[in-house]
Amino acid sequence: VQSNMAQTLEAIKYENGELYVLNQLLLPHVTHFDKVCTIQDGHAAIKEMKTRGAPAIAIVAALSLAVDLRSRSNEGEFDSAASAVEFIRNSLEYLKTSRPTAVNLFDAAGKLWRTVEQRAQTATNQLDIVDTYVSAAVTMLAEDVKDNKNIGSHGAKFILENSKSSQVSVLTHCNTGSLATAGWGTALGIIRDLNKTGALKHAYCTETRPYNQGSRLTAYELVYEQIPSTLVCDSMVSALLRQNPNISAIVVGADRVAANGDTANKIGTYQLAITAKFHGVLFIVAAPTTSIDLNTKHGADIVIEERPSAEVVQVTGAVVGGEVTGNEVPRQTVQVAANGINVWNPSFDVTPANLISCIVTEKGVIVKKDGAEEFDIPSFLSTL
Amino acid sequence: VQSNMAQTLEAIKYENGELYVLNQLLLPHVTHFDKVCTIQDGHAAIKEMKTRGAPAIAIVAALSLAVDLRSRSNEGEFDSAASAVEFIRNSLEYLKTSRPTAVNLFDAAGKLWRTVEQRAQTATNQLDIVDTYVSAAVTMLAEDVKDNKNIGSHGAKFILENSKSSQVSVLTHCNTGSLATAGWGTALGIIRDLNKTGALKHAYCTETRPYNQGSRLTAYELVYEQIPSTLVCDSMVSALLRQNPNISAIVVGADRVAANGDTANKIGTYQLAITAKFHGVLFIVAAPTTSIDLNTKHGADIVIEERPSAEVVQVTGAVVGGEVTGNEVPRQTVQVAANGINVWNPSFDVTPANLISCIVTEKGVIVKKDGAEEFDIPSFLSTL
Repeated sequence: VQSNMAQTLEAIKYENGELYVLNQLLLPHVTHFDKVCTIQDGHAAIKEMKTRGAPAIAIVAALSLAVDLRSRSNEGEFDSAASAVEFIRNSLEYLKTSRPTAVNLFDAAGKLWRTVEQRAQTATNQLDIVDTYVSAAVTMLAEDVKDNKNIGSHGAKFILENSKSSQVSVLTHCNTGSLATAGWGTALGIIRDLNKTGALKHAYCTETRPYNQGSRLTAYELVYEQIPSTLVCDSMVSALLRQNPNISAIVVGADRVAANGDTANKIGTYQLAITAKFHGVLFIVAAPTTSIDLNTKHGADIVIEERPSAEVVQVTGAVVGGEVTGNEVPRQTVQVAANGINVWNPSFDVTPANLISCIVTEKGVIVKKDGAEEFDIPSFLSTL
Repeated sequence: VQSNMAQTLEAIKYENGELYVLNQLLLPHVTHFDKVCTIQDGHAAIKEMKTRGAPAIAIVAALSLAVDLRSRSNEGEFDSAASAVEFIRNSLEYLKTSRPTAVNLFDAAGKLWRTVEQRAQTATNQLDIVDTYVSAAVTMLAEDVKDNKNIGSHGAKFILENSKSSQVSVLTHCNTGSLATAGWGTALGIIRDLNKTGALKHAYCTETRPYNQGSRLTAYELVYEQIPSTLVCDSMVSALLRQNPNISAIVVGADRVAANGDTANKIGTYQLAITAKFHGVLFIVAAPTTSIDLNTKHGADIVIEERPSAEVVQVTGAVVGGEVTGNEVPRQTVQVAANGINVWNPSFDVTPANLISCIVTEKGVIVKKDGAEEFDIPSFLSTL
């Protein structure tokens, strides 16, 4: 059984009314949590990309207001329920300007605002409002993490039920962990769950070219938690599957899941699904039900964004041999590829449903009916 | 029809008795040919890795002695056939110390020495010896390039005969071009042949992680010759094949071909063979018959070397924005991946014969018998 001495990585820590956010700009070279005391701190953490991932952004915004609000309340800044409500309204509007395109952030702000508005109808003093807001924000973080933990346990159970061994190895692509979600993670949450219960033999992560989310972020999370793990290049997965028959599953996240189960995810996912099929290895998509878009009938309807060639031909990293001063790591951007070469750099690809073994959500595992090539996700959702 | 204004890249140029060798240490950022006048120059070019690739090393060694010998002869340094023979013998021994593990270099030196020894039996003066050596060395280069051109034309013909279109697109992995061979190239030689005859629509090259031979070297060759081309990450090939049905073939080189056709080649090759099969695209191995090892019965007999993790977690490139001074490009090595992550870094993988459409040699194309899973290479070779 796996020893689990290391702490779980929490990129967003809310403890005893204090908020700490892992500064992802310094990753993977320096681990530093910034204390967030005000909405200005929260706004800056989002705007400067110290925090990233759609769910994480929403949570940091919500909690930065919670700590700011509590501190002002303790200092007697509000003299009525109305003055606290007014401050919350203005603050949420301000926080929304930190990342004007973030849908999760807007959804969260709207939800929090409706809760406060409702409480305001019966509140007798400012503390009623402050307590209501803080509680709603804290619950939001807890709910998000709980959803991920459910994904983790559903996914781990599915893998173990479909494997001959009680200890399994798993490979993952891109970053779907505590650094991309509110905490715990989706595909990486499955690996965390297997590790927690002693059922993980080994985790493998891909580099995830061109932006290296795997080697930078997933590898960081695995090292941080002392999960037995190995990094491979994207091109090595097939050779690995051929020589290591103990790898039971490839687990990935999803940017969008269509109604038939076709899944858009980080570029390279489709190739992994093909090699998983070829080697008879489970290929599992892990995503909250909020990533399912029933308006997208199938993958062909998903438009793939193409990104700048610089992401492929250049690399930024910490200068080898450079001296770390406090939180400052000397970095450099270098060009690897030949000048003048054309580049094709799609962000995502679409994996067809017929290559996917199952889709793991917080509400359970979606499988195909016997012999079906596609998933019937509307049916699954309607039975909940 | 493709215009072909650009010059063919010759990493080794022997013209009018002068030898110029492309300094590969400066690639892909600076194109500079070093003039090689002496065996000391040739020795240094090999030892300092300015020239690389087993066939290229042998040729540079052979030709550096040719130019040195001719120049000394012109200056009257030799007073007899014996003194020229003596100089050649000592020089070949010296050149072999430039890369003591290079089998091709030792083979070439042995072959040249036998030619000289034989001529010495009847030679009447030093010029007989000098002419014999120079001619043998020059022929060696010409023969190697001719073999590659034959591989190129055999491969191009096979692709066109097996494609519906008269213009095809082709993808290649790693570097098998003028920078890895004596000239023209093997798999890249097929692309050059298609381009020369106007039958190439587009060439795609992979990055070839972790050492980036594709983005550094193949991309350089393609840009140099203005061949219409695009770089993709290794993980993008499947998405590319899915959206671009005009790609007729994936062409790769070989480090070793077993008697049954199982092929060891740069890591990532096996994964490309799987996706080629999945998408119904030809998968072609291009290699001289000297790469076939009949003593290796099948791929399982091939031991795969594992290389240091630094190759995966660090990258060296030209500093972006750095100023080029003469032939000096400021370079830097940066760490991309998280510290402390384990790495699996095999140099090669083995592609089983059943995923390979054909093996293209300078002597013709080897195909499988109808329904066979493996190639019968001994039969092919015995009919030559």
